[in-house]
Amino acid sequence: MTIIGHMIGGKNVEDAARTQDVFNPSTGEATKQVALASVETVEEAIAAAQAAYPAWRETPPAKRAQVMFRFKALLEQNADKICEMIGEEHGKIHHDAMGELIRGIENVEYACGAPELLKGEHSRNVGPGIDSWSEFQPLGVVAGITPFNFPAMVPLWMYPMAIACGNTFVLKPSERDPTSTMFIAQLLQEAGLPDGVMNVVNGDKTAVDVLLTDERVKAVSFVGSTPIAEYIYQTANANGKRCQALGGAKNHAIVMPDADMDNAVNQLLGAAFGSSGERCMALSVAVAVGDQAAETLVSKLKEAMKPLKVGAFSDKSNDFGPVITRAHQEKVVGYINSAEADGAEVVVDGRAPQVEGYDNGFFVGATLIDRVTAQMNSYQEEIFGPVLQVVRAESMEEAMQLINDHEYGNGTCIFTRDGEAARYFSDHIQVGMVGINVPLPVPVSYHSFGGWKRSLFGDLHAYGPDSVRFYTKRKTITQRWPSSGVREGVSFSFPS
Amino acid sequence: MTIIGHMIGGKNVEDAARTQDVFNPSTGEATKQVALASVETVEEAIAAAQAAYPAWRETPPAKRAQVMFRFKALLEQNADKICEMIGEEHGKIHHDAMGELIRGIENVEYACGAPELLKGEHSRNVGPGIDSWSEFQPLGVVAGITPFNFPAMVPLWMYPMAIACGNTFVLKPSERDPTSTMFIAQLLQEAGLPDGVMNVVNGDKTAVDVLLTDERVKAVSFVGSTPIAEYIYQTANANGKRCQALGGAKNHAIVMPDADMDNAVNQLLGAAFGSSGERCMALSVAVAVGDQAAETLVSKLKEAMKPLKVGAFSDKSNDFGPVITRAHQEKVVGYINSAEADGAEVVVDGRAPQVEGYDNGFFVGATLIDRVTAQMNSYQEEIFGPVLQVVRAESMEEAMQLINDHEYGNGTCIFTRDGEAARYFSDHIQVGMVGINVPLPVPVSYHSFGGWKRSLFGDLHAYGPDSVRFYTKRKTITQRWPSSGVREGVSFSFPS
Amino acid sequence: MTIIGHMIGGKNVEDAARTQDVFNPSTGEATKQVALASVETVEEAIAAAQAAYPAWRETPPAKRAQVMFRFKALLEQNADKICEMIGEEHGKIHHDAMGELIRGIENVEYACGAPELLKGEHSRNVGPGIDSWSEFQPLGVVAGITPFNFPAMVPLWMYPMAIACGNTFVLKPSERDPTSTMFIAQLLQEAGLPDGVMNVVNGDKTAVDVLLTDERVKAVSFVGSTPIAEYIYQTANANGKRCQALGGAKNHAIVMPDADMDNAVNQLLGAAFGSSGERCMALSVAVAVGDQAAETLVSKLKEAMKPLKVGAFSDKSNDFGPVITRAHQEKVVGYINSAEADGAEVVVDGRAPQVEGYDNGFFVGATLIDRVTAQMNSYQEEIFGPVLQVVRAESMEEAMQLINDHEYGNGTCIFTRDGEAARYFSDHIQVGMVGINVPLPVPVSYHSFGGWKRSLFGDLHAYGPDSVRFYTKRKTITQRWPSSGVREGVSFSFPS
Amino acid sequence: MTIIGHMIGGKNVEDAARTQDVFNPSTGEATKQVALASVETVEEAIAAAQAAYPAWRETPPAKRAQVMFRFKALLEQNADKICEMIGEEHGKIHHDAMGELIRGIENVEYACGAPELLKGEHSRNVGPGIDSWSEFQPLGVVAGITPFNFPAMVPLWMYPMAIACGNTFVLKPSERDPTSTMFIAQLLQEAGLPDGVMNVVNGDKTAVDVLLTDERVKAVSFVGSTPIAEYIYQTANANGKRCQALGGAKNHAIVMPDADMDNAVNQLLGAAFGSSGERCMALSVAVAVGDQAAETLVSKLKEAMKPLKVGAFSDKSNDFGPVITRAHQEKVVGYINSAEADGAEVVVDGRAPQVEGYDNGFFVGATLIDRVTAQMNSYQEEIFGPVLQVVRAESMEEAMQLINDHEYGNGTCIFTRDGEAARYFSDHIQVGMVGINVPLPVPVSYHSFGGWKRSLFGDLHAYGPDSVRFYTKRKTITQRWPSSGVREGVSFSFPS
Repeated sequence: MTIIGHMIGGKNVEDAARTQDVFNPSTGEATKQVALASVETVEEAIAAAQAAYPAWRETPPAKRAQVMFRFKALLEQNADKICEMIGEEHGKIHHDAMGELIRGIENVEYACGAPELLKGEHSRNVGPGIDSWSEFQPLGVVAGITPFNFPAMVPLWMYPMAIACGNTFVLKPSERDPTSTMFIAQLLQEAGLPDGVMNVVNGDKTAVDVLLTDERVKAVSFVGSTPIAEYIYQTANANGKRCQALGGAKNHAIVMPDADMDNAVNQLLGAAFGSSGERCMALSVAVAVGDQAAETLVSKLKEAMKPLKVGAFSDKSNDFGPVITRAHQEKVVGYINSAEADGAEVVVDGRAPQVEGYDNGFFVGATLIDRVTAQMNSYQEEIFGPVLQVVRAESMEEAMQLINDHEYGNGTCIFTRDGEAARYFSDHIQVGMVGINVPLPVPVSYHSFGGWKRSLFGDLHAYGPDSVRFYTKRKTITQRWPSSGVREGVSFSFPS
Repeated sequence: MTIIGHMIGGKNVEDAARTQDVFNPSTGEATKQVALASVETVEEAIAAAQAAYPAWRETPPAKRAQVMFRFKALLEQNADKICEMIGEEHGKIHHDAMGELIRGIENVEYACGAPELLKGEHSRNVGPGIDSWSEFQPLGVVAGITPFNFPAMVPLWMYPMAIACGNTFVLKPSERDPTSTMFIAQLLQEAGLPDGVMNVVNGDKTAVDVLLTDERVKAVSFVGSTPIAEYIYQTANANGKRCQALGGAKNHAIVMPDADMDNAVNQLLGAAFGSSGERCMALSVAVAVGDQAAETLVSKLKEAMKPLKVGAFSDKSNDFGPVITRAHQEKVVGYINSAEADGAEVVVDGRAPQVEGYDNGFFVGATLIDRVTAQMNSYQEEIFGPVLQVVRAESMEEAMQLINDHEYGNGTCIFTRDGEAARYFSDHIQVGMVGINVPLPVPVSYHSFGGWKRSLFGDLHAYGPDSVRFYTKRKTITQRWPSSGVREGVSFSFPS
Repeated sequence: MTIIGHMIGGKNVEDAARTQDVFNPSTGEATKQVALASVETVEEAIAAAQAAYPAWRETPPAKRAQVMFRFKALLEQNADKICEMIGEEHGKIHHDAMGELIRGIENVEYACGAPELLKGEHSRNVGPGIDSWSEFQPLGVVAGITPFNFPAMVPLWMYPMAIACGNTFVLKPSERDPTSTMFIAQLLQEAGLPDGVMNVVNGDKTAVDVLLTDERVKAVSFVGSTPIAEYIYQTANANGKRCQALGGAKNHAIVMPDADMDNAVNQLLGAAFGSSGERCMALSVAVAVGDQAAETLVSKLKEAMKPLKVGAFSDKSNDFGPVITRAHQEKVVGYINSAEADGAEVVVDGRAPQVEGYDNGFFVGATLIDRVTAQMNSYQEEIFGPVLQVVRAESMEEAMQLINDHEYGNGTCIFTRDGEAARYFSDHIQVGMVGINVPLPVPVSYHSFGGWKRSLFGDLHAYGPDSVRFYTKRKTITQRWPSSGVREGVSFSFPS
Repeated sequence: MTIIGHMIGGKNVEDAARTQDVFNPSTGEATKQVALASVETVEEAIAAAQAAYPAWRETPPAKRAQVMFRFKALLEQNADKICEMIGEEHGKIHHDAMGELIRGIENVEYACGAPELLKGEHSRNVGPGIDSWSEFQPLGVVAGITPFNFPAMVPLWMYPMAIACGNTFVLKPSERDPTSTMFIAQLLQEAGLPDGVMNVVNGDKTAVDVLLTDERVKAVSFVGSTPIAEYIYQTANANGKRCQALGGAKNHAIVMPDADMDNAVNQLLGAAFGSSGERCMALSVAVAVGDQAAETLVSKLKEAMKPLKVGAFSDKSNDFGPVITRAHQEKVVGYINSAEADGAEVVVDGRAPQVEGYDNGFFVGATLIDRVTAQMNSYQEEIFGPVLQVVRAESMEEAMQLINDHEYGNGTCIFTRDGEAARYFSDHIQVGMVGINVPLPVPVSYHSFGGWKRSLFGDLHAYGPDSVRFYTKRKTITQRWPSSGVREGVSFSFPS
């Protein structure tokens, strides 16, 4: 069985003393093994990054950007192959994997603009004959720790910009689906990056803890669940590192009575069930304002969900695929059970989907639950599965209060045609990413991604302008040249 | 004896169950008492800030800025009075207190530009018919904890911008010299700030810990020593708060052989001894490159130090005043003793200054120590007194290595006339604030203040552009309006 | 009778060989005379500005800003006095003059932010060891030529920022109402501006032509009518000057059927009749979409116009005052006559208002004309009087086409509650300043003011960020320091 | 013989009623003919651009940028071919053509960042419940008119950014060497640009005048000589167009006595003789400060010029090639003659170079003239040939005065090691692009290119950030949503 190793200093490194199975969640079979790095291997990766840093820091930003231009081209040329890799280990259908990859490539495009983005601020005459300017210098070795659900995109949120800013990088991707991540890193190498600037170590908590404590690592970017994000953030901070750690979500859509219902339903389908709901921006709660809106919404959703097809990643006609593991499948079903037990109404039941020929796949079908309340466990926690819950509110204020009271504040959306409703909502909702008739308001690559409340730990958001600031530190220089007579013609006497 | 209380919700609050003496360090006498807030009083201040927040958040930035314009005018009108207050409790001579105050006022001026500084980024057509923009919204209640050495300036680094951004504020100033800080806060109130937007609690660790743990406080800015900064940073983070914590320093000047020596000596005097060296930007180490430069430097410094006068704050002809406490006086003298014991040469000895009529004042005279080495304790730690140490290096590289190896990375400076030396230094030195022939490279108010390494914990620097980002959180909105026929004239049927 | 002279080099200069009457339009009487500068006097003003330039250019931006802070305070202290001056010569009611003045002061506030606004762009390592940065340096002597309708505000759009950027200034205000303009310039002088940085010459085409042709003048800002703007722009350009020339307008509001009609009517009143319609942002055409909307709009407007009071500036209860001259009064009435002759319906007729006690004042009453068409002369030209014309359109597209086909493109507005309508309108309308339910979308001082099509000649808009760019020129510096061994310790040999 | 036609609406268009010879300047032979467009053909190109505009304007900036990413790749793949084309018609040696092309490609790279560069400014709460934002919208059809000396680079300064901003384009390249320009435009088409977005018309003044007067053209960018630039600027302005017109230059280098002479000489060679001096950034005057510096400079230059080889473009070992035409060759020689006649000393004489096998080529050899003075015609005018003139000055001030007094202000440079000299020079020199030890201070693509004085007509510089502003117009939107009860739950009654 193939064993997936590590990429350190531009070379493949085995270190497979410890390994873990990698599954094809569509079939439920283990198809590969991934090496779990030892402390020494992670330190070797850090050392490689450290060694590559001085020369890479000196490389002009415009030259660094050339690598990113070539990287983009290679990603496009290898797109189908990458999507196949993602599908096999994550279970995503091709169109969905392609969506992820394109979003990832957009971050590479943004990193191509590094020369512009790294401009500092210059002030002539802050005092008589005194100038001052601020530069944004790289940090050194930085690390990224990324989740299974976007094996291509989330790493691409991090290292293209980190590297374009002059840092060197150690990535620890998810051990569930490392193949595409590793392949993409090799494409970056192929694009002309010097050895050691980019390194990948596969592994588990052992690897994570080295990255969090080794003093050569200056910053850590993380995406995952909130409890781990919190641990990462505090541990990194306690070890003198800059950190941004993105955690969980519970994204609500408010459906106003004036919304275009057919449009709203259509948008909700993709936002709730796409990628089996395994997205931190998945829309998992719809809050209908008024019973009439709720009735219409639920009946239209029920109808629209009929043709939805869950199945193996290899069939492009499927709408979405399996969840990531057997354990996760059981957890999602458990949430549906608990909602039902708590008195909610399971309108469309995906607990036992039939996927012919894939009896052992980790499938959950699209599920719709009505009359969910804020007290239910299924409402309070992140399900991370293809489950859309409907909550009913009396007014827009009540609907907004639900969102503002929730622990998470990643994304949210309102469906309405009214300018006032849209403006009031976007101004007052305690959520970092807001959609107006846009159910998945993932910011484009030239804005930044970040939730509020317990969805993000750190000052600065991921990718976009904030990532430039995160991956650099400000240096301010103040300069005066004492008069030495050079201008007056006395100059001839001077350095002879 | 006067007891200095608290300012909460626009009112004076006594809470003087616990108090501490406030000294006049020029005479060594306790002249006032400061109340030390109880847990309840701090919570009351937070509650006042929380109550004032919604209305202040809604106040347009341009209106908030009007308060800052008036505040600037009031500070200027009361400048002499404030300097007197600072002098009496801190010991600073009038010109030095005025310097501090003016720097503080410059931060108020910068906050007057809030409408410009708060502009978000707007993108038309991120997709077909889809717009997206990012706003920078206030955080809520934020807190500041400030040190004794700049009772006017450092608080003004924080709350004018925090408040101009729409936050409300609780300040815990130093309990050593709270009078000027409190008076300035009252001027802000007088400038038209609504009650509760600005609050001041005097106190000790009890107060600090409430601010660090109360969940209503969203962010903490701190300036002080490194061990406390580290504690503040980790505690605030563990409690879900944004934090920036500025710590200690050991600022070196490299004196190159081509430097204009008279100019360098002149600059060093003020940078080393001004404010008795009780500045985190004080220049406490001069690294001479080459023995010839060292000899010239030391002999010229020795000569130039002769007329320096240490004495009471009330005599404007003095160059600098006492240090803050008896204990600190002894600590500074201890560092001089240890340097001497370690083999350094005390060229000018300020351990026993004669200040007529002020026998009990906490004075240390200007001290120059030559032949200091990196191994000495007096080199490794921050002295925070009027002591300039000279280290001798063989080359610019060696001099830079000393700086880069030091725990702190706040400020540094090079004296040279050579463009190449200046550029190489500013590019490669591991320090956040760099001077070229500028010994105290404190960034102007429209840049930002921050050290590197263990001189600052956090991603963002103090005041200036970084403070706008620190005191706000990014919200990104993505908007699409589904077509409803409004443009085609079908529109008549719609809202009836 | 008082003769208003000139302010040159900080002194009053008479030069009253030629003069012109200044009227009180409320009474129709000439109350003062204004001197019309000779060629020599204008050249003297330019020379004064030229002489003051080098020192002012060297003054740090933060110091220049201090003058603006004091200027703001002085304007606020003298506000009532200034409004009285404006009222007497222009005819504006006090509240309207105050509105103008506050808008003007906001431009002074923005100029206080010059240190931030003048920041250049800095790039480290554009090549190996090569840095490059762009600065924005002042132009030298710049001139402003301003209209009668905003004697306080429009000059304040120009010279505060021009001066804060380091330029020196010659202003030629309108000869109809120069008193307030001159008084305000004296306040700036009082705020601490060095003599010669700001100069005012009163005059006519003689003065204008000197400013347009003298080679020491580097830039000209103009606000007035389109034919003059075009002349100014081309003459200035032909003489090697940078120029921005703002001209006329014909601002339309689209009233959609879903608009809140009471709100729309209320907003239209002020926008159409305020300042007697003598504003380049006056809303002079309402386009109702659909006959039902038109009927409602016209009947509600008719009702709402009943209590409107035209009268002398000295009675604060009046809604608006006289127009500027007898000739202009006749011209406005002529437009009403022509509309009527062309078949439009004069719903409310202000051609012969009764203003007791002011029989000779230049009054026109609020006038509403319905069923105006695009072919009418009164529609095609700018009336600049208290006349609101209603055009009826079948659809939003037709209404927008009317606007896009008009020669002018200054301001426009839509009244609607629909998000889609608002977005489509703002995206596609060929007008520079767009309101959504905001009838006078004058940008705030930290954005910029400018129309499209024949409403503005030049690349850059007035005030705000664009004005910083207009009043400065970009200089880009690229710097490399050849290696001379300074770092390696060979350095000792060097400058001996 | 090949006839080079036009590219309109994505198709080749012949229109060869009038033609002109295109020469190979290395051989002196006409090798092709270029069609000179009729009025109708230019109008057809404008019509094609106009037709393509609405759809291109609606295309999201990120999609437009994709075309630029592909365009960059195609340019790199075809680089050698393009350099060959340039060499054959212009005479540039391969390395020089490659340098030009790379600089051009860097502008394409910058245009790839359009989504970031087009961000507008957004302000929440400019008043209570009122938001305002500024967008930068495209202009429509814009035109470029470009010179013979950079047939690849200068057009690439213009249309990539113009097009990325959403405009459509008509280019009129030089009729001397149109082949590479046309080929590059076809590559852009191949990169996926919709037909009509980019159009090329070859031609002469007939074509130019259509572009300057047709009202569908909204802006014109021009690079060429100053008299033509002035004509273009005034004519475009008189026809209501935005214009930037870059003209001639006379770039001086000051050589200070402390300069590293070997480095300076080495730099000067390339800057003076590269591309036969046919560059608006060519360094054509060296001002030596002090006779000693002058003597050293001249003797070292003389020595260093010995191995310089002028010759045919096809031999890559040549340093530079022929000038563009027989007439121009004679003109350059005429300037050398006149300098000699005026008393200057021709130290190295390139008037009659021997280029074996290319007797009819338009060659001028590298020429060095010493003791030139400001009164000489050869000093006052732009030679545009491989001629370096040395002027001797007594002091840095005198040297700077020479530069500041010259009609042109494009580029300049100082050679020094002294920080003070560099700073004083860069601050006070009246030139737009300044080098410190960089003889050709052409700004990188992410800064902007522009001279001062009579070297540029217009407010905004070419390429870089200024070009984004030049190719867009500001639109400011102010928005308020009147309250309609939507939030309070009354909402149920509304649009049913």
